[in-house]
Amino acid sequence: MNRFRSPRHQHAHDATPRMARLLVSALVLVMLLASMPAAQALKLNVHRKTLANGMEVVVIPDHRAPVVTHMVWYRVGAADEPSGKTGLAHFFEHLMFKGTEKIAPGMFSRIIERHGGEDNAFTGPDYTAYFQRIAKAHLPLVMAMEADRMRNLRLTAEMVRTEREVIKEERRMRTENNPRALFGERLNALLFLAHPYRRPVVGWMDDVSRLTLKDALAFYRRHYSPNNAILVVVGDVTPEEVFRLAEKHYGPLKNDGPRPDRVRTREPAPLAARRVVMRDARVQAPVFQRLYQAPSYRTANGREAHALEILAQALGGGTTSLLYRRLVVEEKLAAWAGAAYDGDGRDYGVFVVYAAPVPGVSPERLEARIDEILTEVRRDGLPEAELQRAARNLAAETVYALDSQFALARLVGASLATETPLSVIETWEEQLLAVTPDEVRAVARRVLRPEGAVTGLLMKAAARKPSEATDVRRGGLAAAAAGKASVR
Amino acid sequence: MNRFRSPRHQHAHDATPRMARLLVSALVLVMLLASMPAAQALKLNVHRKTLANGMEVVVIPDHRAPVVTHMVWYRVGAADEPSGKTGLAHFFEHLMFKGTEKIAPGMFSRIIERHGGEDNAFTGPDYTAYFQRIAKAHLPLVMAMEADRMRNLRLTAEMVRTEREVIKEERRMRTENNPRALFGERLNALLFLAHPYRRPVVGWMDDVSRLTLKDALAFYRRHYSPNNAILVVVGDVTPEEVFRLAEKHYGPLKNDGPRPDRVRTREPAPLAARRVVMRDARVQAPVFQRLYQAPSYRTANGREAHALEILAQALGGGTTSLLYRRLVVEEKLAAWAGAAYDGDGRDYGVFVVYAAPVPGVSPERLEARIDEILTEVRRDGLPEAELQRAARNLAAETVYALDSQFALARLVGASLATETPLSVIETWEEQLLAVTPDEVRAVARRVLRPEGAVTGLLMKAAARKPSEATDVRRGGLAAAAAGKASVR
Repeated sequence: MNRFRSPRHQHAHDATPRMARLLVSALVLVMLLASMPAAQALKLNVHRKTLANGMEVVVIPDHRAPVVTHMVWYRVGAADEPSGKTGLAHFFEHLMFKGTEKIAPGMFSRIIERHGGEDNAFTGPDYTAYFQRIAKAHLPLVMAMEADRMRNLRLTAEMVRTEREVIKEERRMRTENNPRALFGERLNALLFLAHPYRRPVVGWMDDVSRLTLKDALAFYRRHYSPNNAILVVVGDVTPEEVFRLAEKHYGPLKNDGPRPDRVRTREPAPLAARRVVMRDARVQAPVFQRLYQAPSYRTANGREAHALEILAQALGGGTTSLLYRRLVVEEKLAAWAGAAYDGDGRDYGVFVVYAAPVPGVSPERLEARIDEILTEVRRDGLPEAELQRAARNLAAETVYALDSQFALARLVGASLATETPLSVIETWEEQLLAVTPDEVRAVARRVLRPEGAVTGLLMKAAARKPSEATDVRRGGLAAAAAGKASVR
Repeated sequence: MNRFRSPRHQHAHDATPRMARLLVSALVLVMLLASMPAAQALKLNVHRKTLANGMEVVVIPDHRAPVVTHMVWYRVGAADEPSGKTGLAHFFEHLMFKGTEKIAPGMFSRIIERHGGEDNAFTGPDYTAYFQRIAKAHLPLVMAMEADRMRNLRLTAEMVRTEREVIKEERRMRTENNPRALFGERLNALLFLAHPYRRPVVGWMDDVSRLTLKDALAFYRRHYSPNNAILVVVGDVTPEEVFRLAEKHYGPLKNDGPRPDRVRTREPAPLAARRVVMRDARVQAPVFQRLYQAPSYRTANGREAHALEILAQALGGGTTSLLYRRLVVEEKLAAWAGAAYDGDGRDYGVFVVYAAPVPGVSPERLEARIDEILTEVRRDGLPEAELQRAARNLAAETVYALDSQFALARLVGASLATETPLSVIETWEEQLLAVTPDEVRAVARRVLRPEGAVTGLLMKAAARKPSEATDVRRGGLAAAAAGKASVR
């Protein structure tokens, strides 16, 4: 469910920032900073201020090392793009590295690098964010540069043309040339009927190939205003000095009108189970994948999102999970199997179940067995001991702790950009450990419903018979189906 | 495939204006007017002029009776709506009957009626059109009124609120309360992955319920300009008098900027067969429906659209068609079965195959048999005699001839609004009768491909077990799935 696209082509972040993973890594830091024991309500040491132009500033002091993470978040992502302009948010993220009157095209990242820092950006369905990690002494420089490009970007038609080709190539490399990615994109587009989460963040190829300088400038003016931005600084700073710097660099920036509305179609009630069979000559072994519409942390009632997190972990989070034990270890039907929950969306979450049959087992047989297990889970829930273990495992996962300053900044920024209360972070572990077996069963019943799901089978394409090869006189279709060409 | 929505709630046109039907009825009139034998190239007696403000005027004299059909077409339909505003084109069509400084709210149709005429409007994916049929003496009145509301509509927030409820009720009545309509809407939304033909013309309920006066006014200013309009007059008039009247009434109207672009995402290559199973307690007997992406008359190469028209007729156009004969008459698997082709879209067409199993036959068994027949058709084509009979039947269908002035105006207007050359009308019968069996087989192979299709099964929902009834704590989902509630 990589609904988050990687940022600029040079420095790709391919990781899916799952709420659990981010929370876990961030919580470790929070605990370090706050010196509080686990499983209690945690208090984020967050200092917030809103500038006169509407820009939000959030500071989290962290004095362990003389570095800062500086992030600017815009409340605009792929789900906010105009009709027929998919990919524009991500496209624009690339253009933000072009240049201003003060910074020559392409120099932004080189200046950061020259000062010993690193920078990048990423685009999701709900936001676009730019960040730098650098020695604290250079925070004023970073702010000056980031504020400069928020309003003074200089774009030309030639830059747009060039970058469009870069992005088309990125799409070809990562999506068209990768059957699993194509498959995921198609499944996602069928999971949501009307809500814009159905769009690929990188955009449909045809839309991307038509994006113009005019589109870019209209998007820039509309969305890249201080009242649509959130600054998050985590690091060896005091709130006061960051507020003072922010006033100086971001304070003078003007808005283009009020903050834009986020107009997104609420999904109609899912009424029909959907199913996709994709055949591709490049596929070596078949894959089964099932996506369910789910609530997100922001839209869930009570502890539903926490319960989904535990359900995913107990059902398919590693080799001790139910699906893995049954399908891979005991019954030898699958080469791998698992489940995951992505609950960080502003409007919806997604619950995923996936598996690959071993040779000799048809995907349909594997699917039938998975459906039996899911029916059992819906009916009986999962044993309390397994749920507790899953919750503890989630809470104990500290593998990302080394990267935690970044993770915390990212988590706080993403929460604010998606209008998710910061209390979700503060109470996360406590709520996670408080989830009851009944809550897990209830959410399994609510979410794992056939009519809210898309089932996909990705299979190796059978060799085409010569008589069929003459079928398609138009370019593209047959070639793409055979996995040889990109979309148009 | 009713991609065309009916117009205002009082005077609904539920008919799907299939190109064949419109062409046939229009051709009859053309032949009457032109006194030419069938199966030859026909010359439409079309007179065209473009006003200085960019409005196109098209006149087709028809002196058989002292009446005129006056139509104004706007090059805007559901496929041109902004993201998150589905239903706006149709919604705005309703608002056009509200009133201006000169015409009190709701009086437009009453004035037409008082002069012995009738009027209505319709919205499709590619256009919105308003028409009046009236005695020729009243043509100046009609023009004055239509020109008036093109630019001087007076809308209030209250009108928008009221009409929004009317349209929501219309959607409830026609879609939510009708499992077949819901099923069709969902299938259509899955046939197109990215192109806006996937949207229901009436709009998704959530979008409709959020449409505002501001949305309406922005849409009006942007799309209801003379340079985005086409006037079609068919009737007892001379081109000169219509041009003179048009200059007088439409000539002085001002544009708001250049004609808007029509930005529509080209479909990515279809790679995966899709399948939908919808269960609804209100369904009495199961239905099988298969939709294929197809070219339209405008986008087809050579005679592909004509060949698809013949293919649909021979395969499923009545009780002598192949599917009906085999499935209903000979094998007694189906209660009914048929096929249809909708080729009048600006960007794509749709080919449909449908059937209903008789009691005791599962939809899956019926589907498997249909797939065998379609495989046979793709491999071998259809016998020349059957194709010839299909072409002759299409050409001979004259049932709509009585309504032909209207049909001709509609056909010409729709062609211009979708940028389809009028030569398609003029050469239609000739090209239809020239289609070869090889062309039919080639287009069957190109279009009837699993990866370009959505297959739907609509079935009666099994009674819910009491243990399942407590599943869903949120309103809407379970109720809607059980067919009792509207969306949300």
